[in-house]
Amino acid sequence: MTAPSDAPQWLQTALTKRATRDEAMMRFMQTGNVRNNREWKFPWPDHALSELQLTGETASEVSVAATTELDSTDQISQALLQGAVTATGLCVAYIRRLTEVLFDDALKQAQYLDRFFKEKGRLVGPLHGVPMTLKDQFDVEGYDSTLGYVGRAFKPAAQDSALATLLKRLGAVVIAKSNLPQSIMWCETENPLWGLTTHPKNSDFTPGGSTGGEGTLLALKGSVVGWGTDIGGSIRIPSHMLGLYGLKPSNTRLPYLGVAVSTEGQEHVPSVIGPMARNLDSLIAATKAVIGAKPWDLDPRCSPLPWRSGMLIEIQTRPLVIGIMRDDGVVKPHPPVARILEKTARLLEEAGHELVSWEPGTAHQECISIMDQFYTADGGEDIRRDVEAGGEPFLPHVEALVNKGSPISVYSYWQLNKQKLEAQKKFLDKWNSTVSPTTGKPIDILLTPVMPHSAVPHRKCRWVGYTKIFNFVDYPAVVLPAGEVYRELDVSAASEIAAHGARNELDSWNKELFDLETMHGMPIGVQLVARRLEEEKVLGAAKIVDELLRSAGKMA
Amino acid sequence: MTAPSDAPQWLQTALTKRATRDEAMMRFMQTGNVRNNREWKFPWPDHALSELQLTGETASEVSVAATTELDSTDQISQALLQGAVTATGLCVAYIRRLTEVLFDDALKQAQYLDRFFKEKGRLVGPLHGVPMTLKDQFDVEGYDSTLGYVGRAFKPAAQDSALATLLKRLGAVVIAKSNLPQSIMWCETENPLWGLTTHPKNSDFTPGGSTGGEGTLLALKGSVVGWGTDIGGSIRIPSHMLGLYGLKPSNTRLPYLGVAVSTEGQEHVPSVIGPMARNLDSLIAATKAVIGAKPWDLDPRCSPLPWRSGMLIEIQTRPLVIGIMRDDGVVKPHPPVARILEKTARLLEEAGHELVSWEPGTAHQECISIMDQFYTADGGEDIRRDVEAGGEPFLPHVEALVNKGSPISVYSYWQLNKQKLEAQKKFLDKWNSTVSPTTGKPIDILLTPVMPHSAVPHRKCRWVGYTKIFNFVDYPAVVLPAGEVYRELDVSAASEIAAHGARNELDSWNKELFDLETMHGMPIGVQLVARRLEEEKVLGAAKIVDELLRSAGKMA
Repeated sequence: MTAPSDAPQWLQTALTKRATRDEAMMRFMQTGNVRNNREWKFPWPDHALSELQLTGETASEVSVAATTELDSTDQISQALLQGAVTATGLCVAYIRRLTEVLFDDALKQAQYLDRFFKEKGRLVGPLHGVPMTLKDQFDVEGYDSTLGYVGRAFKPAAQDSALATLLKRLGAVVIAKSNLPQSIMWCETENPLWGLTTHPKNSDFTPGGSTGGEGTLLALKGSVVGWGTDIGGSIRIPSHMLGLYGLKPSNTRLPYLGVAVSTEGQEHVPSVIGPMARNLDSLIAATKAVIGAKPWDLDPRCSPLPWRSGMLIEIQTRPLVIGIMRDDGVVKPHPPVARILEKTARLLEEAGHELVSWEPGTAHQECISIMDQFYTADGGEDIRRDVEAGGEPFLPHVEALVNKGSPISVYSYWQLNKQKLEAQKKFLDKWNSTVSPTTGKPIDILLTPVMPHSAVPHRKCRWVGYTKIFNFVDYPAVVLPAGEVYRELDVSAASEIAAHGARNELDSWNKELFDLETMHGMPIGVQLVARRLEEEKVLGAAKIVDELLRSAGKMA
Repeated sequence: MTAPSDAPQWLQTALTKRATRDEAMMRFMQTGNVRNNREWKFPWPDHALSELQLTGETASEVSVAATTELDSTDQISQALLQGAVTATGLCVAYIRRLTEVLFDDALKQAQYLDRFFKEKGRLVGPLHGVPMTLKDQFDVEGYDSTLGYVGRAFKPAAQDSALATLLKRLGAVVIAKSNLPQSIMWCETENPLWGLTTHPKNSDFTPGGSTGGEGTLLALKGSVVGWGTDIGGSIRIPSHMLGLYGLKPSNTRLPYLGVAVSTEGQEHVPSVIGPMARNLDSLIAATKAVIGAKPWDLDPRCSPLPWRSGMLIEIQTRPLVIGIMRDDGVVKPHPPVARILEKTARLLEEAGHELVSWEPGTAHQECISIMDQFYTADGGEDIRRDVEAGGEPFLPHVEALVNKGSPISVYSYWQLNKQKLEAQKKFLDKWNSTVSPTTGKPIDILLTPVMPHSAVPHRKCRWVGYTKIFNFVDYPAVVLPAGEVYRELDVSAASEIAAHGARNELDSWNKELFDLETMHGMPIGVQLVARRLEEEKVLGAAKIVDELLRSAGKMA
């Protein structure tokens, strides 16, 4: 697939980059690891150039033939120890499900792990042989970190990111990197370099973003644990839309070193890294393993806060006080989102936990107004430079972002930071004063929707206030699958949303998006939040909620 | 003491502010708490207005008549429990040593504590009755936080800082606030509002800064624990020059909320708060008590990292690997500073610890070049606004600071932040690779000079590279008194410094400062440093060093 010689340079670069990926795939197939080409949709169909610009193929669209039931890190460790599977076998099985270009190194790493196990009779580390994938921001030596920018293609990283270093040390096998949106700061997944990532259940729908490549890979069983980044919901939104588990930790808990990002150097509302998986135990195991490997020895920003098993367990042993934010006061959730949140609350109450209503007031919108100013404090210069470096076209929402306003002065930036701290303080005080009416104890956990809607058609996402508020206050949050849109259950409430008088333009937009017919079957998650750096606490609470939801079944 | 009606407004404000302080002092004396006026140098002498501008009196110059042997927080708790003393008695005894305006409230608080103890038979908290003082940045409800700026006089704080809240809860009695330099960013203590703070051993010399008011109060036994701030050495430098103990923790360990500061909102090379005392046990007790009171419930920036007694103890039970940086490569220490560092190293080696040389290379200077850009990234706007708000004159070094350069853009600021992270990463890697040649273990602690000189004449301090590097990497550091300039011991090395070929203008400046005759008897400290957020570890190491030095005696 080559571009005509008069095609713009950015497009030639993008096509060359994709061809490189295809060649790696072909090499892998020729090694005999794949029985026949019919297992793959390969090579990818050529698109008309005009179409390619915004609708190229991605990893997620590869048809997946084989499956494996080894779905969690713990199951993999057990199977390896029992000799039921090898790291190489796992690596091949998972590589067969995706597209990126780390296959050769991944296989070498898997073969090394198998030799190690054979010789020493033990696993290298707690993640031995677990196939993992990384959003295309994490540096892996010798491979590009494109961030989805044409201008970053063919510029391989000189060394591993801290996470990649630790994962290798722990025994994980990184098999691929995955797609993300131009600018990263978007809740869908599309860029001129790699194209558009689509939802596995309906290709007209977005899988969410910005960690949409990881999300789709995981949903299609192309990986066991996927690592993403989240500055406003980028791990949690695709988890919600795809029926996955995702953790956005507090800043400084997991190592960001060697992860390129838009507006890099903007540390006041920082992006964080976190895992995604198809089950909670993998999410916990991956987080625990990385923290156990002392990321603060590699990344100067990491807090030297060891993994606290006691905190994870303690919260599972007593009745909790749980705040519930049903509505953020800006955009009212769609009926299925509201229904599933209520179901979760009911299950918790029936299990003896106490629910306390959390009223966001106007503070919610205020926090978001402050944080939005950080992203564009440079007048869009950072993102503009990256887009222009490759000569690629701006996606419309990225163009709007970089043209949102003029840069502010450093002095104003410092004043903005003071506003941020005041708003964070108000939020902390609100948390501490949201107490059980019976015991007077403040809430342990906050339960909220993830988005005001399930997956929506491409380019329709707009409001991420339910997730980004927790980046602003830097509280850890877990998303877990809690149900799905279900025509029969949601039809009665559909008239309610029709009758709902929209509060504002965003609310009106969201109201118009609701379409029970096309949304039927789309996953819906819930979000649990704990106070800053209480990752173990929020994961422990997620165990409780997850078990209640799994026991109750989909139709509860 | 009033200004003529044609004096500039700033001077009238400054004189009114000082008069308010004097009236509070007079009220206190009239209550009968002071036997006669001869115990005080009071009222302060009127200065010629021209002189007043930069040489007004400060708290520290008040002559102190009474003394008490109750010098540490633990001794105070014991004496209170045994009924040997009351909180009110302590409060009066300490108030008699200083000048600021919290006396009425302090006495009320002390009387409350005494009633509480009498009724309940127990202390309110671990700091019950301990007289403390605060640098004039900490908000205390109803009192000014002047920061030494005329424009901030007569603007009382609406509520307590997080530290003041916690101290009250823990039982401490805050009796005064103390002086600091205009702009705060200076290693001496002088401003147009309050004047110049002088060294108790020689009024021609500076006590250091910026927490020079606290340091002088402590040296004169005007307080048991003094709380300061440190963005480049401001706790450690006066501790060093006055023979005190001081802790600069890592950022986020102790609560900064409600502490006003220059360039507020600049969080990339942040100022931190920390305690100072005349003994190490008070330093540890104060730190432990504040952390034990969960500052993260009040201050959203605080890390929820409980006090780790195990870490404090563990490091005292084994041979340590200690890096020693004898010279930062920029400014060579004076002979007494070098001698006392070597003595400390020798005592450690004799006690079975291992010393490893730390060579700063050019990285030291690089870190400092990066960090200096943060302070002036706004082109001096923040400090200029504060100075101009009161119409006060600029001190020359402040004027130089605010005119150092134009503001940079937010985009450049982000790039600077990336440079910072790279330099921090190099420093971390250097720490981890500075290992014991025998065991291969990395150093536990780094031992360094605090300043290249002991106390110097006013307006002669210039190089704070030995302290500020640890603000840049955000590592906790303790300063403890280790000896003093001693004519007979240092005379032989004096010829060495005379022969030393200066490396640069700063080194030449420092060389010229050395004067054995006037410096004789001036205290000299050493600095211990641990990795980020390891406050307990560095305090535990300080216990070891302190005991060795105390056992060896001054002349070792």
